[in-house]
Amino acid sequence: MPDPIDFRRRFAGRRVLITGGLGFIGSNLTRALLGFGAKVTIIDSLEPAYGGNRRNLAGVAGRVKIHIADVRDWPRLPGLVRNQEFLFNLAGQTSHMDSMTDPQTDLDINCRAQLAILEACRQHNPKVRIVFASTRQIYGRPDYLPVDEKHPLRPVDVNGINKLAGESFHLLYARVHGIQATALRLTNTIGPRMRIKDARQTFVGIWIRRLLEGRPFEVWGGGQLRDFTYVDDAVEAFLLAAVRPEAAGMVFNLGGPRPVTLSQLAGLLVKANGGGEFAVREFPADRQKIDIGDYYADDRLIGRRLGWKPRTDLPTALRRTLEYYRTEWRHYV
Amino acid sequence: MPDPIDFRRRFAGRRVLITGGLGFIGSNLTRALLGFGAKVTIIDSLEPAYGGNRRNLAGVAGRVKIHIADVRDWPRLPGLVRNQEFLFNLAGQTSHMDSMTDPQTDLDINCRAQLAILEACRQHNPKVRIVFASTRQIYGRPDYLPVDEKHPLRPVDVNGINKLAGESFHLLYARVHGIQATALRLTNTIGPRMRIKDARQTFVGIWIRRLLEGRPFEVWGGGQLRDFTYVDDAVEAFLLAAVRPEAAGMVFNLGGPRPVTLSQLAGLLVKANGGGEFAVREFPADRQKIDIGDYYADDRLIGRRLGWKPRTDLPTALRRTLEYYRTEWRHYV
Repeated sequence: MPDPIDFRRRFAGRRVLITGGLGFIGSNLTRALLGFGAKVTIIDSLEPAYGGNRRNLAGVAGRVKIHIADVRDWPRLPGLVRNQEFLFNLAGQTSHMDSMTDPQTDLDINCRAQLAILEACRQHNPKVRIVFASTRQIYGRPDYLPVDEKHPLRPVDVNGINKLAGESFHLLYARVHGIQATALRLTNTIGPRMRIKDARQTFVGIWIRRLLEGRPFEVWGGGQLRDFTYVDDAVEAFLLAAVRPEAAGMVFNLGGPRPVTLSQLAGLLVKANGGGEFAVREFPADRQKIDIGDYYADDRLIGRRLGWKPRTDLPTALRRTLEYYRTEWRHYV
Repeated sequence: MPDPIDFRRRFAGRRVLITGGLGFIGSNLTRALLGFGAKVTIIDSLEPAYGGNRRNLAGVAGRVKIHIADVRDWPRLPGLVRNQEFLFNLAGQTSHMDSMTDPQTDLDINCRAQLAILEACRQHNPKVRIVFASTRQIYGRPDYLPVDEKHPLRPVDVNGINKLAGESFHLLYARVHGIQATALRLTNTIGPRMRIKDARQTFVGIWIRRLLEGRPFEVWGGGQLRDFTYVDDAVEAFLLAAVRPEAAGMVFNLGGPRPVTLSQLAGLLVKANGGGEFAVREFPADRQKIDIGDYYADDRLIGRRLGWKPRTDLPTALRRTLEYYRTEWRHYV
């Protein structure tokens, strides 16, 4: 974790709330903040279909207040939000397919609960500094590449519609109510502690599981361009957005060092693993209908404003991720 | 009501469900459909803060099945949706200010219930033809005038965010699930049976109330450009969108004959009334924060595709509206 603006000085002794703190990015963020001396409180539902996993805080759990609570449980929110100085808002339903088969659950978490969190802040802690985990999914199928923050927002699935509403509430509360909120539009994020049990959080998860189990993994389509952010780089973006006053009310894309096709990614993963097999398959029809085609982010805005850039190249990101799961695999499947 | 494509032939004996059917546009639509021989069922919550009013169906209520039900009451939706051939989906929370002070109620009606309605259709009546009442509010502050359907969608209040999600669900269900849904983005609509008790549905309502009570009304700002659709013209657009197969999956703006400033509108209203007073006031601060500035619609797309245009000029619209409330006033205040 680079420390260009002295995160220790900014976070030591500060009260930080993280929703989804037992999840992939949330737990890596928790670990970073503990390293800087922050007092971290976590909300996580540990819903089995989502990213939360107690193993993600192995070795540090005793230094964190952990509330197994659901952001849909509104009465608990005011008590949790009160007196916090920072709120990293990462709780979410991430599966695009699940959002199509169970749209109301996606809405209740990604849209309705977000408004409840913001109302709790407005009423009980209007000075809290919020960073919200948004997603490139809200752009839908790109009109042009790379996609910058001015690209039209035309989500192609229920998850994208709800995440867009959730992001919009954050920016509205910043503009109208003076809540200091920043939204980061994440692309595919990979690294230790991601969900590998299935493709609900990222398709790379199930690829890694299959690879480590010695089974071939499936690449759907294969030609789509994508960019990948290593989790430590994503964590740095959340921290920067939280401490830089000029980030309040802003929205920033996060991207990766360079885009690759999914087939290229599969090849890099097999190479990083020192072997393995994959098969390129046609898209399933129900998945094709909500696919966004090629995507990669123009992330120069956060570079100019906050000095962030993705530092970890893809082979390194894949190697570190595989290293983690070689020993930790059994806790994640 | 003009009848360019023989609405009687298209609607006679057909089963039609109207959400918000006791409201302003819903009740005018109900009356038109009864005139064409349709079998109309209505859902309306009669929530006192919204547009529903039993007086709106005076003289025809006996020919309509009326369910006093809330679209937030999901268990009732499948039974209501089943076997309907058309669904005019107009139930909504319309107050921008209320959406800021009670955002969750706005979300539950304008966003969450819309998804529940669509899920009920998908599961129990996927062949139903839906026309959804969307709003120009989803555009936010215009980048250019007149605003066409390609204008960026950047809502400036909670109501706009939720209506955008509600519209997006309709178009997504059209694209992915084959539900035949059309969205109409309404601008200010005026006419008999609108709410005049306060400004919750349209500011023109409270203007008319004050005028008929012999009191001065307040114009906030005054210089903002707006367009106004007479309700009979809006009703015609709903009917056209429902019967034209090429409208499925589409979104269309509705506009008025020509834009006027709010001060001009106030002058026209006083003239139509044969007297009255108004005062131009500064915007209240909380209202200013969510104001969209100038707006008027480019409605040529629905003109080209469906042959619709606003036929009723503004002086005529105002005169007919005032005529209605001169005798009906006491049922609306």
